[in-house]
Amino acid sequence: MSNDQIINSEVTTLLEGKNFAFVATLMKDGSPQITPTWIDLEDNIILVNTAEGRVKHKNVSRDPRVAVSIVDEKNPYNMITIRGRVMEQTTIGADEHIDKLAKKYLGVDKYPFRSPTEKRIILKIKPENIFHMKPPK
Amino acid sequence: MSNDQIINSEVTTLLEGKNFAFVATLMKDGSPQITPTWIDLEDNIILVNTAEGRVKHKNVSRDPRVAVSIVDEKNPYNMITIRGRVMEQTTIGADEHIDKLAKKYLGVDKYPFRSPTEKRIILKIKPENIFHMKPPK
Repeated sequence: MSNDQIINSEVTTLLEGKNFAFVATLMKDGSPQITPTWIDLEDNIILVNTAEGRVKHKNVSRDPRVAVSIVDEKNPYNMITIRGRVMEQTTIGADEHIDKLAKKYLGVDKYPFRSPTEKRIILKIKPENIFHMKPPK
Repeated sequence: MSNDQIINSEVTTLLEGKNFAFVATLMKDGSPQITPTWIDLEDNIILVNTAEGRVKHKNVSRDPRVAVSIVDEKNPYNMITIRGRVMEQTTIGADEHIDKLAKKYLGVDKYPFRSPTEKRIILKIKPENIFHMKPPK
Protein backbone atom coordinates (compact mmCIF):
# COMPACT_ATOMS: atom_id res chain seq x y z
CA MET A 1 0.00 0.00 0.00
CA SER A 2 1.54 3.34 -0.97
CA ASN A 3 1.49 6.41 1.25
CA ASP A 4 -0.54 8.27 -1.32
CA GLN A 5 -3.33 5.78 -0.85
CA ILE A 6 -3.43 5.91 2.91
CA ILE A 7 -2.95 9.63 3.56
CA ASN A 8 -6.26 10.99 2.32
CA SER A 9 -7.48 14.55 2.63
CA GLU A 10 -9.28 14.04 5.96
CA VAL A 11 -6.14 12.55 7.45
CA THR A 12 -4.04 15.38 6.01
CA THR A 13 -6.34 17.91 7.67
CA LEU A 14 -5.82 16.23 11.04
CA LEU A 15 -2.05 16.00 10.58
CA GLU A 16 -1.69 19.58 9.41
CA GLY A 17 -3.97 20.99 12.12
CA LYS A 18 -2.74 22.31 15.44
CA ASN A 19 -3.21 18.88 16.95
CA PHE A 20 -0.89 17.06 19.30
CA ALA A 21 0.41 13.67 18.32
CA PHE A 22 1.17 10.83 20.69
CA VAL A 23 4.15 8.84 19.54
CA ALA A 24 4.79 5.35 20.86
CA THR A 25 8.28 3.92 20.61
CA LEU A 26 9.94 0.81 22.01
CA MET A 27 12.21 0.78 25.04
CA LYS A 28 15.32 -1.42 25.08
CA ASP A 29 13.38 -4.23 26.75
CA GLY A 30 10.68 -4.03 24.06
CA SER A 31 8.09 -2.36 26.28
CA PRO A 32 6.13 0.57 24.86
CA GLN A 33 6.69 4.22 25.73
CA ILE A 34 4.61 7.25 24.70
CA THR A 35 5.42 10.91 24.37
CA PRO A 36 3.10 13.67 23.24
CA THR A 37 4.66 15.83 20.59
CA TRP A 38 4.15 18.40 17.88
CA ILE A 39 4.05 17.07 14.33
CA ASP A 40 4.36 18.15 10.76
CA LEU A 41 3.48 16.55 7.44
CA GLU A 42 5.66 16.80 4.36
CA ASP A 43 5.16 14.76 1.19
CA ASN A 44 3.07 12.22 3.09
CA ILE A 45 5.81 11.69 5.65
CA ILE A 46 5.19 12.57 9.29
CA LEU A 47 7.92 14.72 10.82
CA VAL A 48 8.66 14.79 14.53
CA ASN A 49 11.27 17.17 15.89
CA THR A 50 13.11 16.01 18.99
CA ALA A 51 16.55 16.46 20.54
CA GLU A 52 19.42 14.02 20.22
CA GLY A 53 19.71 11.64 23.14
CA ARG A 54 16.12 11.91 24.33
CA VAL A 55 14.35 8.63 25.11
CA LYS A 56 12.30 8.81 21.91
CA HIS A 57 15.42 9.38 19.81
CA LYS A 58 17.33 6.57 21.49
CA ASN A 59 14.39 4.24 21.06
CA VAL A 60 13.85 4.80 17.34
CA SER A 61 17.59 4.57 16.70
CA ARG A 62 17.48 1.06 18.16
CA ASP A 63 14.12 0.02 16.67
CA PRO A 64 12.45 2.32 14.13
CA ARG A 65 8.95 0.97 14.63
CA VAL A 66 6.51 3.57 15.97
CA ALA A 67 2.82 4.27 16.36
CA VAL A 68 1.32 7.74 16.16
CA SER A 69 -2.12 8.83 17.31
CA ILE A 70 -3.57 12.24 16.50
CA VAL A 71 -6.76 13.69 17.90
CA ASP A 72 -8.66 16.64 16.50
CA GLU A 73 -8.39 19.37 19.14
CA LYS A 74 -11.90 20.47 18.23
CA ASN A 75 -13.43 16.99 18.45
CA PRO A 76 -11.71 14.23 20.44
CA TYR A 77 -13.84 11.62 18.70
CA ASN A 78 -12.15 12.41 15.39
CA MET A 79 -8.83 10.64 15.56
CA ILE A 80 -6.30 8.67 13.60
CA THR A 81 -3.83 6.02 14.58
CA ILE A 82 -0.88 5.24 12.39
CA ARG A 83 1.70 2.49 12.55
CA GLY A 84 4.91 3.01 10.68
CA ARG A 85 8.63 3.39 11.01
CA VAL A 86 11.29 6.08 11.20
CA MET A 87 12.88 5.82 7.76
CA GLU A 88 15.33 8.70 8.19
CA GLN A 89 16.77 10.99 10.86
CA THR A 90 18.38 14.32 10.07
CA THR A 91 19.79 17.30 11.91
CA ILE A 92 19.82 19.32 8.69
CA GLY A 93 17.22 22.07 8.92
CA ALA A 94 16.10 20.81 12.34
CA ASP A 95 16.57 24.18 14.08
CA GLU A 96 14.50 25.98 11.45
CA HIS A 97 11.95 23.19 11.61
CA ILE A 98 11.38 23.48 15.37
CA ASP A 99 10.82 27.23 14.85
CA LYS A 100 8.26 26.37 12.17
CA LEU A 101 6.48 24.08 14.65
CA ALA A 102 6.59 26.77 17.35
CA LYS A 103 4.86 29.07 14.86
CA LYS A 104 2.22 26.44 14.12
CA TYR A 105 1.51 25.46 17.72
CA LEU A 106 2.36 28.57 19.75
CA GLY A 107 2.13 31.36 17.20
CA VAL A 108 5.67 32.55 17.93
CA ASP A 109 8.60 32.93 15.52
CA LYS A 110 11.23 31.23 17.66
CA TYR A 111 10.98 28.00 19.62
CA PRO A 112 11.03 29.30 23.21
CA PHE A 113 12.10 26.16 25.09
CA ARG A 114 15.43 25.56 23.42
CA SER A 115 18.23 24.43 25.67
CA PRO A 116 21.69 25.70 24.72
CA THR A 117 23.14 22.19 24.83
CA GLU A 118 20.52 20.34 22.82
CA LYS A 119 20.87 19.35 19.21
CA ARG A 120 17.56 19.16 17.37
CA ILE A 121 16.83 16.26 15.07
CA ILE A 122 13.97 15.51 12.69
CA LEU A 123 12.53 11.99 12.68
CA LYS A 124 10.83 11.11 9.40
CA ILE A 125 8.07 8.57 9.86
CA LYS A 126 6.69 6.61 6.94
CA PRO A 127 3.12 5.50 7.65
CA GLU A 128 2.48 1.84 6.90
CA ASN A 129 -0.96 1.35 8.35
CA ILE A 130 -3.57 3.97 9.16
CA PHE A 131 -6.89 3.85 10.98
CA HIS A 132 -9.27 6.81 11.04
CA MET A 133 -11.92 6.78 13.73
CA LYS A 134 -14.64 9.25 12.91
CA PRO A 135 -17.05 10.77 15.42
CA PRO A 136 -20.23 8.75 16.02
CA LYS A 137 -23.22 10.25 14.20
CA MET B 1 8.42 1.94 44.20
CA SER B 2 4.84 1.61 45.41
CA ASN B 3 1.86 3.02 43.56
CA ASP B 4 1.08 5.26 46.46
CA GLN B 5 4.37 7.01 45.96
CA ILE B 6 4.02 7.61 42.26
CA ILE B 7 0.34 8.56 42.01
CA ASN B 8 0.37 11.99 43.64
CA SER B 9 -2.53 14.40 43.82
CA GLU B 10 -1.68 16.28 40.64
CA VAL B 11 -1.54 13.03 38.73
CA THR B 12 -4.80 11.90 40.31
CA THR B 13 -6.47 15.11 39.14
CA LEU B 14 -5.36 14.43 35.57
CA LEU B 15 -6.46 10.79 35.72
CA GLU B 16 -9.82 11.58 37.24
CA GLY B 17 -10.53 14.50 34.92
CA LYS B 18 -12.48 14.19 31.68
CA ASN B 19 -9.23 13.62 29.82
CA PHE B 20 -8.56 11.11 27.11
CA ALA B 21 -5.80 8.58 27.59
CA PHE B 22 -3.62 7.17 24.85
CA VAL B 23 -2.75 3.57 25.51
CA ALA B 24 0.16 1.92 23.74
CA THR B 25 0.26 -1.86 23.54
CA LEU B 26 2.44 -4.33 21.66
CA MET B 27 1.40 -6.09 18.47
CA LYS B 28 2.30 -9.75 17.92
CA ASP B 29 5.50 -8.73 16.10
CA GLY B 30 6.48 -6.47 19.02
CA SER B 31 5.71 -3.22 17.23
CA PRO B 32 3.80 -0.54 19.13
CA GLN B 33 0.14 0.33 18.65
CA ILE B 34 -1.83 3.20 20.18
CA THR B 35 -5.50 3.69 20.87
CA PRO B 36 -7.14 6.68 22.50
CA THR B 37 -9.52 5.65 25.24
CA TRP B 38 -11.51 6.69 28.26
CA ILE B 39 -9.96 5.93 31.64
CA ASP B 40 -10.78 5.60 35.27
CA LEU B 41 -8.72 5.48 38.43
CA GLU B 42 -9.48 3.17 41.34
CA ASP B 43 -7.16 2.54 44.28
CA ASN B 44 -4.18 3.85 42.29
CA ILE B 45 -4.89 1.41 39.47
CA ILE B 46 -5.78 2.71 36.01
CA LEU B 47 -8.87 1.11 34.52
CA VAL B 48 -9.51 0.88 30.81
CA ASN B 49 -12.76 -0.57 29.52
CA THR B 50 -12.59 -2.32 26.17
CA ALA B 51 -14.36 -5.18 24.42
CA GLU B 52 -13.11 -8.74 24.21
CA GLY B 53 -11.25 -9.49 21.02
CA ARG B 54 -10.28 -5.92 20.17
CA VAL B 55 -6.66 -5.33 19.15
CA LYS B 56 -5.84 -3.73 22.51
CA HIS B 57 -7.31 -6.67 24.41
CA LYS B 58 -5.53 -9.24 22.25
CA ASN B 59 -2.27 -7.37 22.64
CA VAL B 60 -2.29 -7.12 26.43
CA SER B 61 -3.38 -10.75 26.74
CA ARG B 62 -0.20 -11.70 24.89
CA ASP B 63 2.10 -9.11 26.52
CA PRO B 64 0.77 -7.06 29.45
CA ARG B 65 3.25 -4.20 29.08
CA VAL B 66 1.59 -0.88 28.24
CA ALA B 67 2.24 2.83 28.23
CA VAL B 68 -0.44 5.42 28.96
CA SER B 69 -0.31 9.13 28.22
CA ILE B 70 -2.89 11.58 29.51
CA VAL B 71 -3.20 15.22 28.57
CA ASP B 72 -5.16 17.86 30.44
CA GLU B 73 -8.01 18.85 28.12
CA LYS B 74 -7.70 22.41 29.42
CA ASN B 75 -3.93 22.63 28.93
CA PRO B 76 -2.15 20.30 26.51
CA TYR B 77 1.20 21.16 28.08
CA ASN B 78 0.12 19.50 31.31
CA MET B 79 0.57 15.79 30.68
CA ILE B 80 1.64 12.53 32.20
CA THR B 81 3.15 9.42 30.73
CA ILE B 82 2.98 6.15 32.57
CA ARG B 83 4.59 2.82 31.88
CA GLY B 84 3.11 -0.20 33.54
CA ARG B 85 1.40 -3.49 32.98
CA VAL B 86 -2.07 -5.01 32.89
CA MET B 87 -2.14 -6.97 36.11
CA GLU B 88 -5.74 -8.18 35.82
CA GLN B 89 -8.59 -8.43 33.35
CA THR B 90 -12.20 -8.85 34.37
CA THR B 91 -15.61 -8.92 32.77
CA ILE B 92 -17.25 -8.61 36.20
CA GLY B 93 -18.89 -5.21 36.50
CA ALA B 94 -17.59 -4.20 33.07
CA ASP B 95 -21.04 -3.26 31.70
CA GLU B 96 -21.77 -1.01 34.65
CA HIS B 97 -18.27 0.40 34.40
CA ILE B 98 -18.64 1.47 30.75
CA ASP B 99 -21.87 3.23 31.74
CA LYS B 100 -19.94 5.02 34.50
CA LEU B 101 -17.38 6.16 31.94
CA ALA B 102 -20.14 7.30 29.56
CA LYS B 103 -21.45 9.42 32.42
CA LYS B 104 -18.00 10.87 33.06
CA TYR B 105 -17.12 11.61 29.44
CA LEU B 106 -20.47 12.15 27.74
CA GLY B 107 -22.79 13.02 30.59
CA VAL B 108 -25.23 10.22 29.72
CA ASP B 109 -26.44 7.36 31.89
CA LYS B 110 -25.97 4.58 29.36
CA TYR B 111 -23.01 3.92 27.08
CA PRO B 112 -24.56 4.73 23.69
CA PHE B 113 -22.17 2.88 21.37
CA ARG B 114 -22.68 -0.63 22.69
CA SER B 115 -22.81 -3.38 20.11
CA PRO B 116 -25.14 -6.29 20.94
CA THR B 117 -22.40 -8.82 20.30
CA GLU B 118 -19.58 -7.26 22.28
CA LYS B 119 -18.49 -8.35 25.72
CA ARG B 120 -16.98 -5.54 27.78
CA ILE B 121 -13.85 -6.14 29.77
CA ILE B 122 -11.93 -4.03 32.28
CA LEU B 123 -8.14 -3.92 32.00
CA LYS B 124 -6.44 -3.02 35.28
CA ILE B 125 -3.12 -1.29 34.75
CA LYS B 126 -0.57 -1.03 37.52
CA PRO B 127 1.69 1.99 36.98
CA GLU B 128 5.38 1.20 37.35
CA ASN B 129 6.95 4.42 36.12
CA ILE B 130 5.39 7.84 35.84
CA PHE B 131 6.54 11.09 34.30
CA HIS B 132 4.62 14.35 34.77
CA MET B 133 5.40 17.11 32.32
CA LYS B 134 4.14 20.42 33.62
CA PRO B 135 3.38 23.49 31.51
CA PRO B 136 6.37 25.80 30.94
CA LYS B 137 6.20 28.89 33.14
